[in-house]
Amino acid sequence: MSTLKTTTQVNGDSSSSIVRATIVQASTVYNDTPKTIEKAEKLIAEAASNGSKLVVFPEGFIGGYPRGFRFGIAVGIHNEDGRDEFRKYHASAIHVPGPEVDKLAELARKNNVYLVMGAIEKDGYTLYCTALFFNSEGRFLGKHRKVMPTSFERCIWGFGDGSTIPVYDTPIGKLGAAICWENRMPLYRTALYGKGVELYCAPTADGSKEWQSSMMHIAMEGGCFVLSACQFCQRKDFPAHVDHLFTDWYDDQHDEAIVSQGGSVIISPLGKVLAGPNFESEGLITADLDLGDIARAKLYFDVVGHYSKPDVFNLTVNEHPKKPVTFVSKTVKAEDLRV
Amino acid sequence: MSTLKTTTQVNGDSSSSIVRATIVQASTVYNDTPKTIEKAEKLIAEAASNGSKLVVFPEGFIGGYPRGFRFGIAVGIHNEDGRDEFRKYHASAIHVPGPEVDKLAELARKNNVYLVMGAIEKDGYTLYCTALFFNSEGRFLGKHRKVMPTSFERCIWGFGDGSTIPVYDTPIGKLGAAICWENRMPLYRTALYGKGVELYCAPTADGSKEWQSSMMHIAMEGGCFVLSACQFCQRKDFPAHVDHLFTDWYDDQHDEAIVSQGGSVIISPLGKVLAGPNFESEGLITADLDLGDIARAKLYFDVVGHYSKPDVFNLTVNEHPKKPVTFVSKTVKAEDLRV
Amino acid sequence: MSTLKTTTQVNGDSSSSIVRATIVQASTVYNDTPKTIEKAEKLIAEAASNGSKLVVFPEGFIGGYPRGFRFGIAVGIHNEDGRDEFRKYHASAIHVPGPEVDKLAELARKNNVYLVMGAIEKDGYTLYCTALFFNSEGRFLGKHRKVMPTSFERCIWGFGDGSTIPVYDTPIGKLGAAICWENRMPLYRTALYGKGVELYCAPTADGSKEWQSSMMHIAMEGGCFVLSACQFCQRKDFPAHVDHLFTDWYDDQHDEAIVSQGGSVIISPLGKVLAGPNFESEGLITADLDLGDIARAKLYFDVVGHYSKPDVFNLTVNEHPKKPVTFVSKTVKAEDLRV
Amino acid sequence: MSTLKTTTQVNGDSSSSIVRATIVQASTVYNDTPKTIEKAEKLIAEAASNGSKLVVFPEGFIGGYPRGFRFGIAVGIHNEDGRDEFRKYHASAIHVPGPEVDKLAELARKNNVYLVMGAIEKDGYTLYCTALFFNSEGRFLGKHRKVMPTSFERCIWGFGDGSTIPVYDTPIGKLGAAICWENRMPLYRTALYGKGVELYCAPTADGSKEWQSSMMHIAMEGGCFVLSACQFCQRKDFPAHVDHLFTDWYDDQHDEAIVSQGGSVIISPLGKVLAGPNFESEGLITADLDLGDIARAKLYFDVVGHYSKPDVFNLTVNEHPKKPVTFVSKTVKAEDLRV
Amino acid sequence: MSTLKTTTQVNGDSSSSIVRATIVQASTVYNDTPKTIEKAEKLIAEAASNGSKLVVFPEGFIGGYPRGFRFGIAVGIHNEDGRDEFRKYHASAIHVPGPEVDKLAELARKNNVYLVMGAIEKDGYTLYCTALFFNSEGRFLGKHRKVMPTSFERCIWGFGDGSTIPVYDTPIGKLGAAICWENRMPLYRTALYGKGVELYCAPTADGSKEWQSSMMHIAMEGGCFVLSACQFCQRKDFPAHVDHLFTDWYDDQHDEAIVSQGGSVIISPLGKVLAGPNFESEGLITADLDLGDIARAKLYFDVVGHYSKPDVFNLTVNEHPKKPVTFVSKTVKAEDLRV
Amino acid sequence: MSTLKTTTQVNGDSSSSIVRATIVQASTVYNDTPKTIEKAEKLIAEAASNGSKLVVFPEGFIGGYPRGFRFGIAVGIHNEDGRDEFRKYHASAIHVPGPEVDKLAELARKNNVYLVMGAIEKDGYTLYCTALFFNSEGRFLGKHRKVMPTSFERCIWGFGDGSTIPVYDTPIGKLGAAICWENRMPLYRTALYGKGVELYCAPTADGSKEWQSSMMHIAMEGGCFVLSACQFCQRKDFPAHVDHLFTDWYDDQHDEAIVSQGGSVIISPLGKVLAGPNFESEGLITADLDLGDIARAKLYFDVVGHYSKPDVFNLTVNEHPKKPVTFVSKTVKAEDLRV
Repeated sequence: MSTLKTTTQVNGDSSSSIVRATIVQASTVYNDTPKTIEKAEKLIAEAASNGSKLVVFPEGFIGGYPRGFRFGIAVGIHNEDGRDEFRKYHASAIHVPGPEVDKLAELARKNNVYLVMGAIEKDGYTLYCTALFFNSEGRFLGKHRKVMPTSFERCIWGFGDGSTIPVYDTPIGKLGAAICWENRMPLYRTALYGKGVELYCAPTADGSKEWQSSMMHIAMEGGCFVLSACQFCQRKDFPAHVDHLFTDWYDDQHDEAIVSQGGSVIISPLGKVLAGPNFESEGLITADLDLGDIARAKLYFDVVGHYSKPDVFNLTVNEHPKKPVTFVSKTVKAEDLRV
Repeated sequence: MSTLKTTTQVNGDSSSSIVRATIVQASTVYNDTPKTIEKAEKLIAEAASNGSKLVVFPEGFIGGYPRGFRFGIAVGIHNEDGRDEFRKYHASAIHVPGPEVDKLAELARKNNVYLVMGAIEKDGYTLYCTALFFNSEGRFLGKHRKVMPTSFERCIWGFGDGSTIPVYDTPIGKLGAAICWENRMPLYRTALYGKGVELYCAPTADGSKEWQSSMMHIAMEGGCFVLSACQFCQRKDFPAHVDHLFTDWYDDQHDEAIVSQGGSVIISPLGKVLAGPNFESEGLITADLDLGDIARAKLYFDVVGHYSKPDVFNLTVNEHPKKPVTFVSKTVKAEDLRV
Repeated sequence: MSTLKTTTQVNGDSSSSIVRATIVQASTVYNDTPKTIEKAEKLIAEAASNGSKLVVFPEGFIGGYPRGFRFGIAVGIHNEDGRDEFRKYHASAIHVPGPEVDKLAELARKNNVYLVMGAIEKDGYTLYCTALFFNSEGRFLGKHRKVMPTSFERCIWGFGDGSTIPVYDTPIGKLGAAICWENRMPLYRTALYGKGVELYCAPTADGSKEWQSSMMHIAMEGGCFVLSACQFCQRKDFPAHVDHLFTDWYDDQHDEAIVSQGGSVIISPLGKVLAGPNFESEGLITADLDLGDIARAKLYFDVVGHYSKPDVFNLTVNEHPKKPVTFVSKTVKAEDLRV
Repeated sequence: MSTLKTTTQVNGDSSSSIVRATIVQASTVYNDTPKTIEKAEKLIAEAASNGSKLVVFPEGFIGGYPRGFRFGIAVGIHNEDGRDEFRKYHASAIHVPGPEVDKLAELARKNNVYLVMGAIEKDGYTLYCTALFFNSEGRFLGKHRKVMPTSFERCIWGFGDGSTIPVYDTPIGKLGAAICWENRMPLYRTALYGKGVELYCAPTADGSKEWQSSMMHIAMEGGCFVLSACQFCQRKDFPAHVDHLFTDWYDDQHDEAIVSQGGSVIISPLGKVLAGPNFESEGLITADLDLGDIARAKLYFDVVGHYSKPDVFNLTVNEHPKKPVTFVSKTVKAEDLRV
Repeated sequence: MSTLKTTTQVNGDSSSSIVRATIVQASTVYNDTPKTIEKAEKLIAEAASNGSKLVVFPEGFIGGYPRGFRFGIAVGIHNEDGRDEFRKYHASAIHVPGPEVDKLAELARKNNVYLVMGAIEKDGYTLYCTALFFNSEGRFLGKHRKVMPTSFERCIWGFGDGSTIPVYDTPIGKLGAAICWENRMPLYRTALYGKGVELYCAPTADGSKEWQSSMMHIAMEGGCFVLSACQFCQRKDFPAHVDHLFTDWYDDQHDEAIVSQGGSVIISPLGKVLAGPNFESEGLITADLDLGDIARAKLYFDVVGHYSKPDVFNLTVNEHPKKPVTFVSKTVKAEDLRV
Repeated sequence: MSTLKTTTQVNGDSSSSIVRATIVQASTVYNDTPKTIEKAEKLIAEAASNGSKLVVFPEGFIGGYPRGFRFGIAVGIHNEDGRDEFRKYHASAIHVPGPEVDKLAELARKNNVYLVMGAIEKDGYTLYCTALFFNSEGRFLGKHRKVMPTSFERCIWGFGDGSTIPVYDTPIGKLGAAICWENRMPLYRTALYGKGVELYCAPTADGSKEWQSSMMHIAMEGGCFVLSACQFCQRKDFPAHVDHLFTDWYDDQHDEAIVSQGGSVIISPLGKVLAGPNFESEGLITADLDLGDIARAKLYFDVVGHYSKPDVFNLTVNEHPKKPVTFVSKTVKAEDLRV
């Protein structure tokens, strides 16, 4: 596993602090959540040993991003294999909170890093594509559930609501996340901007060249650091028995064939690529973020400040949790206790 | 095209009126909306000639239900053929209102029938699975957009909101619709019950045996007539160039292979199957609905009346239209005028 | 007493566990609660000896379901015989908690089974149709009181409130119950779904063919195992002196005449009938429940997850106990904490 | 003046139409509005002779974009030269409507093209950076005033309000514009998306490489064709007497020095660069736009359709004109007539 | 009669035109309107002979400003002398239109000047303090009636309404007027600004030093030329019989005593005093107005343009004529069409 | 540091109270906010020791008014030095509320004065030019954000909205503020008048002679005391490294060169200059304000009272806060807590 690292010029001015951040570009150990967390443990430790204070993992790192899978589904069609494929995928997902979340919090504490982890969360039998946030004291801060999955993802993941669009005001900057094509949603992004995001994490599964344009655009639009994390996966990282699902999509089915090409990148608010993109291997993408660049950039464009036009444009973000059923009771209820 | 028809016993009691209703079990002319409407024209005329006052078509009859299609989509994967497939599918969809809606209104008027038509609606570039309602005077009453597509459908259709869940109070009874697996949604159904639905139309693409159980259950749960309409399609009804998409799903790809087996059925509030199900061919499913059966059934169970328990269970249905962008202006704007 | 039993294929995948469950289809020993409990003891032991971990009894098994009784009541009419009939029926009912409940708890512990028991509960002089829940360690978990009796039942039973709609999160799955036509109540069912019910018990007195449709529908709607338990009763199972009450209903008054035909059934979340229905005799209906089927089914439809539409439909369940008289003091009341 | 032209593959499917569009990358004739319009006349004619149906000019083409000018202004500081510089700049600006607008309408008609023209508009003594829209029949459709100038521009231009954010539904597609860093405003863009923009014109003065990323991002975000038009200007295109203002900014003050490097580009909704960017000279940038690409792209992402999340995010656009003084009167007033 | 005259530097730039304007600082011939008009005739001719294109007279030049008069009025007190004084004052006032107005129009035509004349207008028996506007072709453009008299003036003059607040768009600039302390009314001034006033005439009776501050402020606030005209009067200019009325006010009652000290002044939009103030004698105050100064000034401050804040501040001016009695008929009334 | 002080004649009339007020004419300690506050501490103490109850500081005293800076900005041009200059300027600005605000409140309390302080406020990365208000009990009353910056200021400051135009009703009079050229905005001033301002504070950076005219005019227009506070700065008060930015503007770059000449002044409602202007040095400008002068002046002119003309002129002030993004939620959100 190679490590990309960018050093930054020393800034003698005390008003401008530097934060070292690392993106992990690595693959899930598919269908094996314990081993995936072991892998995360090593990667976090390596990033921390490089001096990083923030470590960002890709979308679905825990639980996996089943690229090319079809779960036996076409329009109006299901099949038995697909159902069982989903059962296994559901089994690899984690509860939030839950033991895996506790473990990740411990890793953040031990390595003294802020951690943003992409995970597949299960809530009952619906899965969510989630980003988990931890501070360097080992506290689980909360989560963001992707509000709108893309295309086929809608067959396997549910929809987040407005109650989990956090931006955390931390000592290393204001930290938030947009997952994959949420990054294409101008109103979602504006919600993050409205909360003051400075460290804009973009766990993704989009490894295209065009994605780089979006990351560059967002860095300048939002006046924030963009940290895009994508898995680098090869055919061998996926289970053998889904081979036939790949047939239509990949010419090359040998073990080394690249299924997700990464492209993780860190870009400054001024539109400077600080580290990456890496399209060739797993690796750590590291850069020193000069937080003073945010003010430098916002002199010209502050999307929710002087360059907003609030007498014309008003975005309302409904943060109420949306639940199909709400139970109202004053008393302690038996069913809340595990028996 | 054969026609199934059920005659009903004459009811001498003047307090109980009879409505003859017909379900059309037929296939879209795929990728050819004008010919599909021509086909509808003939079927409506035939139903009307049998004395029917209500004609119900299946889900997506106009525009088509692309069973087995995959639009080049798997998790995290797209392709060019799929994109073009969608472009054609979008081209077959209709605007509501629009010329096709006008044509259908004219057919309702000419044949003096209430008409419920399943259609693929386009609004900009998002498609919706919609049911259109017309009265026998040729007036377009309104529409219902399916609120939650099923599985792969979410890749090609958008989501309706609460503003199009109509129940129309007509001289032949209160008329509403639930499309396909909306019939599985207890809260959606309860919304229809809450509006007093008596003629519960269920345009669907689900031709399974289990579907019959749901229709029976709903007739009794809702104390209403259930009219389930499903297409009967064979391989030859779909375009040749999507053959490969069927490969995984159907052993038998000959022209006569059944792709959608119908199962259209009419059930009374008392749980009596009045006509159908037909699993063998295209056809018209006709029955005389004795509206007196609704009172007969509700003596024992009235889901939104004496058998509700409103001190415990309260359903709120948010009927506000939900739009991503709302424009506020008092003046007529140039851009509202076509140039 | 014959026993129906379905064996299930062994599933080697550790992520998918199997639970053997038994429904008891048997008649109350009318007007004799001690003997009824003795009968229950034997049936539980037999189910346990077959390896079952969950045993479900029909509605009113303890206390009896007085099918065909009229308690001397017509509109605006009472009589003395009816009053005394009620006195005896009240005498057969049990207090909850109370000695019979303790006995049932002991049976659950001894046989190491989870137990769901239909019982007629008395609270003062009002009777309730109740389901009692016990865990396999012999602990009484709580109860569900039927919230809305059906038709004539309203002359002899009271109405439950929202405080007893439990779903217990147990090692064998999430366990809840809907009694008889509560199964027709979409909002009641949604309350159970909202609590995550996986083992949906349906003690009932409805032995109709149409009931099977509802059970099938609920299994698919809820994505849960449905375990429907109904008494199989013959004329001889009822006291002689109520004969005249049957006159209107049954042509055949001989001792073997079937008064309640059973139809107990177990259905999987995928809509597969795993055991039953038995319409011919008392018996045990047993099946192995592959809990992995829940995830398999919810891939396509999760009624309170990805397929809910909470921005439109919101159900509120008021779980406050509703009492006509409330005494206010400052101390914490034990009953609020009993689980 | 060189001409870049892209030919597109012929599409035999009648549902997908092709529109040829040209961007004009050329410099204002500074301080000489009549000659600037003469220059426009030639460029429009050339584009039309190439078969283009849509011609788009850069920001401030009429009136000029005074790059590098400082109008004698620093914080809290003015001077006399700067005031007179502004007086001349004001003199070069045009009234809308007015004779120059009439002339442009005539050019559109004569060349049978839709025309989008960047102009400096004067309304009283405040200037606005405006885009003018004309149809191919020579009708002035309306205008868009830039809502928020960038940095120093705020010293010389006023602020548009919400009343001029048009999207015109024309036979060649839905036509709208965002000027320069309005393209960075996510809510402004979403307003255009909400009106269904298909031909998204981006007259700009930003010729940076990073601008290309924003154009690419917007094409994909909006699912629309992006046509970015920027002036190509050299030192000699500006008046001699502002030399000293350039001193701090440009090393090279010779006549050929590039002051605005262009970078005009046309990108498809699928993220494909169809023509340009040209960073080297004045020129016409031409491409054939396959409107079917919009549907192809929106299959996956429809920013105001299936991929919006309107239960969470709602943008309100206030289109009321905002005027400091409103006069209310029923009668014809003398002062409205020129005397 | 001396004449103050400021010459202005020649401006070679054709975009910036020069207008020569003259203020007349002279006294009414009290109680003798014909002679007052004769005096005006001479003064206009002199101004015209100096090349002026605009001539502005003080408040009440025709009819007189009865400084120091008390009309026998104190709180709750009248007397006969005062009544007769008013009768004479009323007699000196003019009808608008009327023969004096015709005469003034003729003078404007003959001298080829725009003319703004202060006059006491009578409408029935109420007097108004009015400014009359004439173009250089001898056309009476219209009038402004002072909307709010000051203090004692309220005992002798009525109140104008919103229907006479004109600004005339003339070849020499946009022409309007505010009379005396209307110049202190920020909303009145803003109404003129909103109509684009460029030649802001201020006929007044305020000859204080503080008045100069207001004129300076308004020139900069409005970005307009301010032409303030005040009578220069001595004791001898007033009738003898009002002597006692002066007792309280002036120490010095000799004939040469100054009753109104003038202070007429012309100020540019940049805050430069172009001519005056003259506090010593009757005279003509003349200056060349470089209209380019308006743009030069509005670069920094445009009160109804870039420096307004119309999302916060909105002034509504009700221009409906307000009459105590309105007669309704169907015919178009000539007065509504007079311009 | 010299101190100018005006004593006022003793007023024996008990109905008219006297308030001693001091304007601070002093320079920011540029780029050093802690030292600037230390300097404020001394100046407030000195004013208080003179008996003042109200102390008013100039525009941008905290944070600084960067006169002559250009932040590397021309039309369409930025540079790196300018960006970093802004970063430092941003670092010197303060949060409101925040520790510096707390410190100022403490100073007001300790010295028992009302305090109006000009400050550069930061809200995210946009700066605002703000006036802070404190009462003599040490309570922070609120703030006014300048609604419209002037010319180049628009490149570095955002725009206030209508929600911060306070007038505080205090025991020493009604206290409000207009910053710099807001004093030129007739509608802004009228808003303050409408709220009854009596102590009209005008923190400014305009030290011109013409400014004195505006202050005089406003005192008479508003019938209020005007307290204008402007910094007195020399070249040495600014950092060395911005020298080149001054080159175009100042002939004289020696350390003692005057960059901001002050001109702070106090004027009574009757148009009497009570203290100042001082154009020569830093200093305290002190006067005793006889509040009875307000009534004395309003006898003749009450801009929002008897001299308004509300049947014609109506100003609407929109005080709604305007925010680009609004978050709606009932629950406490994790992100609201600092971690």
